[in-house]
Amino acid sequence: MGTQERKEREREALRELIIQTALVIVETEGLESLTMRAIADRIEYSQSKIYAFFPSKDALCAVLCQDNCEKMLEILKKVPLTDSPEKDLKKLVLKTMEFHASHPHSDELLTEVCFGKKPQEIPKAFLEIEKLFIAALTKLKSPHIRSNEDLQAALDIIRCIFIGVSSLMRAKVSKEGHKRGLLMAENTLDVLLRGWNHE
Amino acid sequence: MGTQERKEREREALRELIIQTALVIVETEGLESLTMRAIADRIEYSQSKIYAFFPSKDALCAVLCQDNCEKMLEILKKVPLTDSPEKDLKKLVLKTMEFHASHPHSDELLTEVCFGKKPQEIPKAFLEIEKLFIAALTKLKSPHIRSNEDLQAALDIIRCIFIGVSSLMRAKVSKEGHKRGLLMAENTLDVLLRGWNHE
Repeated sequence: MGTQERKEREREALRELIIQTALVIVETEGLESLTMRAIADRIEYSQSKIYAFFPSKDALCAVLCQDNCEKMLEILKKVPLTDSPEKDLKKLVLKTMEFHASHPHSDELLTEVCFGKKPQEIPKAFLEIEKLFIAALTKLKSPHIRSNEDLQAALDIIRCIFIGVSSLMRAKVSKEGHKRGLLMAENTLDVLLRGWNHE
Repeated sequence: MGTQERKEREREALRELIIQTALVIVETEGLESLTMRAIADRIEYSQSKIYAFFPSKDALCAVLCQDNCEKMLEILKKVPLTDSPEKDLKKLVLKTMEFHASHPHSDELLTEVCFGKKPQEIPKAFLEIEKLFIAALTKLKSPHIRSNEDLQAALDIIRCIFIGVSSLMRAKVSKEGHKRGLLMAENTLDVLLRGWNHE
């Protein structure tokens, strides 16, 4: 391996270490605790080393969100599709909810990056995930989901459920809270599906 | 006015100043930024003065939450009830949503205090607010809301909407976001009401 190549590999390894460390901080202490200093302290590098990779916390968050979305997409792509869009939608919602449950604050990261004040590039994987939900929602053939606007409204509703349930699950960190959260998401979707399916 | 009485009044005025300052910090900077030091700096008193009133941030948060719940209850009690539980529920949801919209992070405060890890005394006003929602939900005579458990699940769903919409509104601080949030809550409730009303 040439010197150039080795340097490149080391660089890539450090970048990955920064990302994984940042994800641990977000998941254990929340988005507010994520600072360049906190990362530098943990990996014992100078802050300037981290800034060389990520010019700002926003830039770092965008990459973290992308990382999460890619993991989520991997999981959601494996959901076997059936003849029933209701069942498919339920599976997609529950799998997403499980991801948020086992990755605390990942919902906040997503909200911050994809719907936040500062315009960021939406991760491609996020758009792919949206497509899966759009496909299932469209297949419902709901009389209430016809226009593109209806579809966006339906996506908004599902998003609210993810955020609301994640937040309540985070408040009660117990396993009990986790199980209750998944049940809450399922109950909500049942009501929504009836609401979408009826005239 | 006797010395004792004057002292009592001054004490009460300082307590109120601490509460209002804390609320401003929460609404402008978020729950994480609320520290005894931040309050002390703003009102130019020593931290120990504040600790004399509130032994911990949790104790202070419980009082702030109570304050918010009382304001909310005042607003919700004024909602004129009609013959239509659907309309009543919609009004209650929208009024609550408007409150959260004009008091950023009030939903987080509520989640933290009423559903958080550390057991806190639930504000009486919060229970009164729940009663208003329970009354409207019961009046729906939904075939899906029969047991006490169903009722709790329905309250959970409504809570998720408040949290989810508030969070998305906070992400986009613009007036546009505010209006879109209220519409989002209304759309969601429409779907939920159909879902509750149909077999």
